[in-house]
Amino acid sequence: MTTLSVVIASTRPGRAGLPVGHWVAETAAAHGGFEVEVADLAELALPMMDEPQHPRLEQYVHEHTHRWSALVDRADAFVFVTPEYNHGPAASLLNAISYLYREWLHKPVGFVSYGGASGGLRSVQAMHPVVSRLSMVPIPEGVAIPYIKRHVADGVFTPSSAQQESSTVMLDQLLRWQEALVSLRQHN
Amino acid sequence: MTTLSVVIASTRPGRAGLPVGHWVAETAAAHGGFEVEVADLAELALPMMDEPQHPRLEQYVHEHTHRWSALVDRADAFVFVTPEYNHGPAASLLNAISYLYREWLHKPVGFVSYGGASGGLRSVQAMHPVVSRLSMVPIPEGVAIPYIKRHVADGVFTPSSAQQESSTVMLDQLLRWQEALVSLRQHN
Repeated sequence: MTTLSVVIASTRPGRAGLPVGHWVAETAAAHGGFEVEVADLAELALPMMDEPQHPRLEQYVHEHTHRWSALVDRADAFVFVTPEYNHGPAASLLNAISYLYREWLHKPVGFVSYGGASGGLRSVQAMHPVVSRLSMVPIPEGVAIPYIKRHVADGVFTPSSAQQESSTVMLDQLLRWQEALVSLRQHN
Repeated sequence: MTTLSVVIASTRPGRAGLPVGHWVAETAAAHGGFEVEVADLAELALPMMDEPQHPRLEQYVHEHTHRWSALVDRADAFVFVTPEYNHGPAASLLNAISYLYREWLHKPVGFVSYGGASGGLRSVQAMHPVVSRLSMVPIPEGVAIPYIKRHVADGVFTPSSAQQESSTVMLDQLLRWQEALVSLRQHN
């Protein structure tokens, strides 16, 4: 079974990312191809990068890094659920990514972004070079949610039919990529 | 044998891209893992996008598109040799990419960029979301050549030892990725 980690990037109290992330996790569980884990960066509460050594060395000195490392290590694929801040990426996501190195290598990632008119897509664009540097594959299939406030009520996200369909396409592709990349991961 | 296409993006008369591209092609031929082709966009002389149908349909009406399609189709991996114009990508490369769709899918690409202080890397960053949208894999290993003018004399590019070594690392990784992606290409 492929382990999928749904990373909820926003740590803001009241964030839309929580209901969106729960929707992604439920959709992925219903998909049937995945064992689903939710990695909520608010819960994980990683401080601003405080490891003295380059992550490539894996000489982690903090308990929070060991916890995060184990979580990312056992995932085969990711969905990053992310907002867009000031037309750019979320610092929380960049910070979390920066803690690790080998744990990310050769794993596919799909993006579910949300925002105003942009659907958070400028944040996704900005993340492309970052995840590619880690030899991850940012797949083009994803979900963008413009005008997120219209989709969340009482802590529940309600997707459009197009968003629901896009999420399935994304999950199918994550599975395909994950299988193809297994051979590369054997040498990490 | 893996067919590697070295795409020379710049079409400017006097471009540094030509000697850099020749160096990449020679290095790749010496590497031993590749059958090397050079795709010189100046020679190919693609006009500004003039195909009426979406490339996904492959209903090409122009001879130049058929020629370009065949060339990209038979390549298993790419090196894009690209300058940076106004801190952005080369229009010639974007234009050439936009002609095709299926021909690009699930193939890895390494970047050899050149420029002033930046080594052309801002152009590479800008290309990341574009090639990822085509399900290509922009590998992190590449070559950046700052202050290109100091490296070209009499039409010959002379790399630093670091650049020469980086090119080998890039080629090794292109080969690894190409092998891993074959399974995905079977369903294109």
